[in-house]
Amino acid sequence: MNDSKPASVKVLITSGPTRQYLDPVRYLTNASSGRMGAALAEAVLKLGHDVVVVSGPVAVKYPAAAEVVEVITTDDMLRVANEIFPHCDGAIGAAAPCDYKPLHVSDQKLSKTGRPLQLDLVETPDVIAVLGESKRNDQWVVGFALETDDRRFRATVKLEKKHCDLMVSNGPEAIDASDNHVELLDRDGSVIETISGNKQHVANRLIQQIHNRLILQ
Amino acid sequence: MNDSKPASVKVLITSGPTRQYLDPVRYLTNASSGRMGAALAEAVLKLGHDVVVVSGPVAVKYPAAAEVVEVITTDDMLRVANEIFPHCDGAIGAAAPCDYKPLHVSDQKLSKTGRPLQLDLVETPDVIAVLGESKRNDQWVVGFALETDDRRFRATVKLEKKHCDLMVSNGPEAIDASDNHVELLDRDGSVIETISGNKQHVANRLIQQIHNRLILQ
Repeated sequence: MNDSKPASVKVLITSGPTRQYLDPVRYLTNASSGRMGAALAEAVLKLGHDVVVVSGPVAVKYPAAAEVVEVITTDDMLRVANEIFPHCDGAIGAAAPCDYKPLHVSDQKLSKTGRPLQLDLVETPDVIAVLGESKRNDQWVVGFALETDDRRFRATVKLEKKHCDLMVSNGPEAIDASDNHVELLDRDGSVIETISGNKQHVANRLIQQIHNRLILQ
Repeated sequence: MNDSKPASVKVLITSGPTRQYLDPVRYLTNASSGRMGAALAEAVLKLGHDVVVVSGPVAVKYPAAAEVVEVITTDDMLRVANEIFPHCDGAIGAAAPCDYKPLHVSDQKLSKTGRPLQLDLVETPDVIAVLGESKRNDQWVVGFALETDDRRFRATVKLEKKHCDLMVSNGPEAIDASDNHVELLDRDGSVIETISGNKQHVANRLIQQIHNRLILQ
């Protein structure tokens, strides 16, 4: 523990899902609720730091003291995060951006024909990987990895690939749930802490670790 | 106007979106909020009738006096509606069921490969068309048609095809909005009433029309 009181820092948190529309009505997404992002924002504010949340469409309420920028698509989230990140000390990728988008987007609602529809999807940019790649020496990035299989291994691969300083590994049962069970992984793939409980408890522990390891460094 | 007081009837309302999963995380859906369904339920209850809402995942609160059955997929919505409809006097299809589903659903989260992904989609069953087809002579069905182009024509085609008694035609700007602008169409395609305003106002007018034309008949 470092006992010196650090100056207030500014943390960027991405939160919630994004949407990738096929036409004016239908879209691809996931059930991310933004609750983990809201809990992390609360925990960052409690330590006296500033927070900017870049959030996809959610019903959750973010803390009143947080600056919130709303986005719809993954490209929007990346563009806004890229603009804000240079003015921040670190970023936490709690969002679950939709990682595929239709190659073609129709202006009109596609009419049903009775026949199958073949949809060509391409990958969207990886928001946290782009921030990790662009970070200065005095900045840090913490990612989240949501995997159904080989969780720890895949999370460690993602940590490396996305130039993250720490990686939070969790499973699909975390999505739209009030509780979570996560492992916080270090750069060498070792488990720093396993945390279970409601999302505010998990967020408080994660922010305490980030505070000690990255903010007070 | 018929002045005789009718016995209380029971109305089935489908509401909200449905989800069609590709894998444990990603799904296809739309932004339907369930607000129109909730407003219709409120209006039906105000006239002294009973209401059962079959709803996809929404954040909106349905009236406490409404019976609510929650579903996820379009097949779920159809199965539940089919079970409930024989015990009802009529059905209103305010839901926006996801009308395509992946031909193959993966048990594991699909890993990104850096390459495009071709997704084969097939149509889901049409909930209101199935109810319309199965309705008894003493039952009625009211559909909603959401179109971006040739709205009135396409809504009239849907009315006929889905064996509806009335059809509400609206546009994509209705989705997840507090206001709505609709046309209520008769079996012959003529416009019975054009209604604009907040969703509770639109719902009250629609239910008054349904009451006069279908419940009191």
